[in-house]
Amino acid sequence: MTDLVIDLNADLGEGFGRWTLTDDEALLSLVTSANVACGFHAGDPGTMRRVCETAAERGVRIGAQVSYRDLAGFGRRAMDVPADELADEVAYQIGALQVFARAAGAAVSYVKPHGALYNRVVADHEQAAAVAAGARLADPGLVVLCLPDSAMHAQAARVGLPVAAEAFADRAYTAAGTLVPRATPGAVITDPAEVAHRAVALAREGRVTALTGEPVGVRARSLCLHGDTPGAVAAAERVRAALDDAGVRVEAFV
Amino acid sequence: MTDLVIDLNADLGEGFGRWTLTDDEALLSLVTSANVACGFHAGDPGTMRRVCETAAERGVRIGAQVSYRDLAGFGRRAMDVPADELADEVAYQIGALQVFARAAGAAVSYVKPHGALYNRVVADHEQAAAVAAGARLADPGLVVLCLPDSAMHAQAARVGLPVAAEAFADRAYTAAGTLVPRATPGAVITDPAEVAHRAVALAREGRVTALTGEPVGVRARSLCLHGDTPGAVAAAERVRAALDDAGVRVEAFV
Amino acid sequence: MTDLVIDLNADLGEGFGRWTLTDDEALLSLVTSANVACGFHAGDPGTMRRVCETAAERGVRIGAQVSYRDLAGFGRRAMDVPADELADEVAYQIGALQVFARAAGAAVSYVKPHGALYNRVVADHEQAAAVAAGARLADPGLVVLCLPDSAMHAQAARVGLPVAAEAFADRAYTAAGTLVPRATPGAVITDPAEVAHRAVALAREGRVTALTGEPVGVRARSLCLHGDTPGAVAAAERVRAALDDAGVRVEAFV
Amino acid sequence: MTDLVIDLNADLGEGFGRWTLTDDEALLSLVTSANVACGFHAGDPGTMRRVCETAAERGVRIGAQVSYRDLAGFGRRAMDVPADELADEVAYQIGALQVFARAAGAAVSYVKPHGALYNRVVADHEQAAAVAAGARLADPGLVVLCLPDSAMHAQAARVGLPVAAEAFADRAYTAAGTLVPRATPGAVITDPAEVAHRAVALAREGRVTALTGEPVGVRARSLCLHGDTPGAVAAAERVRAALDDAGVRVEAFV
Repeated sequence: MTDLVIDLNADLGEGFGRWTLTDDEALLSLVTSANVACGFHAGDPGTMRRVCETAAERGVRIGAQVSYRDLAGFGRRAMDVPADELADEVAYQIGALQVFARAAGAAVSYVKPHGALYNRVVADHEQAAAVAAGARLADPGLVVLCLPDSAMHAQAARVGLPVAAEAFADRAYTAAGTLVPRATPGAVITDPAEVAHRAVALAREGRVTALTGEPVGVRARSLCLHGDTPGAVAAAERVRAALDDAGVRVEAFV
Repeated sequence: MTDLVIDLNADLGEGFGRWTLTDDEALLSLVTSANVACGFHAGDPGTMRRVCETAAERGVRIGAQVSYRDLAGFGRRAMDVPADELADEVAYQIGALQVFARAAGAAVSYVKPHGALYNRVVADHEQAAAVAAGARLADPGLVVLCLPDSAMHAQAARVGLPVAAEAFADRAYTAAGTLVPRATPGAVITDPAEVAHRAVALAREGRVTALTGEPVGVRARSLCLHGDTPGAVAAAERVRAALDDAGVRVEAFV
Repeated sequence: MTDLVIDLNADLGEGFGRWTLTDDEALLSLVTSANVACGFHAGDPGTMRRVCETAAERGVRIGAQVSYRDLAGFGRRAMDVPADELADEVAYQIGALQVFARAAGAAVSYVKPHGALYNRVVADHEQAAAVAAGARLADPGLVVLCLPDSAMHAQAARVGLPVAAEAFADRAYTAAGTLVPRATPGAVITDPAEVAHRAVALAREGRVTALTGEPVGVRARSLCLHGDTPGAVAAAERVRAALDDAGVRVEAFV
Repeated sequence: MTDLVIDLNADLGEGFGRWTLTDDEALLSLVTSANVACGFHAGDPGTMRRVCETAAERGVRIGAQVSYRDLAGFGRRAMDVPADELADEVAYQIGALQVFARAAGAAVSYVKPHGALYNRVVADHEQAAAVAAGARLADPGLVVLCLPDSAMHAQAARVGLPVAAEAFADRAYTAAGTLVPRATPGAVITDPAEVAHRAVALAREGRVTALTGEPVGVRARSLCLHGDTPGAVAAAERVRAALDDAGVRVEAFV
């Protein structure tokens, strides 16, 4: 028996109308938290409903994956959105998703920024505060899923929102415990065995080997799996199996 | 003392970003029900929040003015949206508005289709059923505000949604009690005195003079005022004053 | 030696930002005419440029695949767009594509309506005239690729635009030479051998067997291949090979 | 007799569908260059056509007012668009406008970035190079209208595009000849007489009084008038009259 526990989250519902991207059906059997796209970078209403229905059936938690309003750029282009506009845009997205979550007998229990917004609120306190304000406006009980030690973490906590920290098993870390920028060689770990190994290390020991070789502590209640690449499902299955084998309970954070 | 009572509703929040259209501030002092645009034909998140806040302060009921997804056409272009997609699009819009209504200490209490969708669901039972399904998915207690004897009225009632009928003081009616199509000469009444006179007749007697001269019964719990034309506020003030003078209590239907 | 000649066209560039759909690279080696999405139902500027570059390199003709403004519905939802707006929307799309065609050393040489607009202009003379007007405004020399005996054909000819008729090797025809509606059993032919066989019959003899068994004449200068389904490339290869084997020269119509 | 000459440019066509903003009809009688919105921050196809038609009738030059893709933010939110995407987005917008300019018997003769993009390319050489690349892809003869001594100016010149420098009669300048940021008190000059006076000084002497009191040289071939504020037309009339009175010929730069 163990009290080691970790959540697995993935971005889901990232199609739009005729286009599909993520294998929602398969991933909803592997993750415990679904970051559902809400229409600003991806996610049409029908997809949102279907993902919520399947998530509710399987006991997967539903989170609002909020984004800049940027379908053409898939939310990957940072935008200087004024704080009050950003807060309202975040609230709008959460509200739209709440309808489908509630209709499925569930609820939106957390929020996670997407893409360029995710990266921006690591350090931008103004936008992080706007995301927190929008989330709080929608529901003061929403958990914010984000990087530990980030502006997002601080701003969410400042307004009383619960926070869950996440880590990435397929990303290299610096000795300081921050993510190595994607452009750096070695920043992204593609070997599925290595990713699974790191997932177990993160979940069991709260540490991984930094790109520079030393062990580094990374506290996380959730691990983020990537759902929009070929092989994403196979990689997720491997991580999930490795965690099971290692006696780590995979369980949502909320 | 009287128990004559009527609601006044108007389309509000029909700007988008840099663009404004309706004089929300003035109209929210005249109407008892605000049909708030939800982002598909007009209505950015910030405008939605502000209209909800002012409506809540003044005790004005908040309704979701749902539309086809058509910013470029302001929702005035009929679309053959498959029923399941339409239902989900309606639910999405309502959910987004619910966030701002709740945050203002109020609620979305009704739904009213906009523009081409409004016209379509007069007779199109499939789309009317889709609107009803979307509304019900969002909130089974939502009132549907629509024309009496319409497909929308029938389909809303069929799934158990309460319905409120509305009439137009500035539109001519046929002897059968239906609206004269806009293209017909005399279809739109522009003289403010005449509009106010008809508003009182509709509220007090439930009847107006048809375009062809005979009296025609038009049962309505709400009168729709138009907010997007020059002179809209002055016309609305005149209607409101005429109702007050005639001893009609202006009060929301929900 | 033969003077039998047919064009092969396919919808290409139907991704949008992060999303891809058609295998543009492979199909541009098989078709002689590329219907390039122009941003209203699919087709971001970068994709438009790349498709034009590859088409120009390989001598594939470039056509503007114009659509209703409907990214969420992929242009598959019929819209009652006023004629003047529709004409301007068509012209806008063509102009945007012309930039990339010209930059690649080629030109937009034809226009083909997409999806719901394609179906609508089979019989709707007002919208067909609007498409023709928009095309003519953009370039009076543009060929219109459409069904023979359609409103589109008639309206294009009426304003002096050249017209090319197309047929579908994978669709069943009625004895009257019109397409069997998709909802009818047997309307879509999925067996690749049968599709290839019908392509040859259409190209060599200008006739196919109707769904009801009798031979029916179908005059077409171009055959439409579908690019957005799994197996599309393999099916297109088979059609192309069958035409080559049958001594039919595959050549653009313009 | 004089050879003093200046161009007057203004942003036009900044409505979208149901919404209007700029008084295009009045301003097209006052300016010599029309910066026409191309659909990414404002500007529907019908408006683009109408503005081009009126501009062509009156001999006003047509420029493409290119923007980030941001209808909701009116192009006022800076975006980190990758350079190749930005170049293609710029070219797309220019191409769409070229159709309407050509159909009106004119041409798109210049390009001017809008809003946040305008501000960004003052100093961001990567985005400035992307705008230049997109403009050049659309037409190597396009003039780029921008601030002197800006990254945009340098990058346009670097790829051989002609450049026209512009100044603002209603904005304060620093002693170094750069615009005082809008947030600074005194940055925007609202007194119409003062604006007209500065316009004449800029046109005749190429200098204005800096916010800090000293005279500062500002070389410009064009003055930008603002068209989207109440009183814009009256202010523009006053500037135009003052230039006429001062013997300055108002004439396009291309």
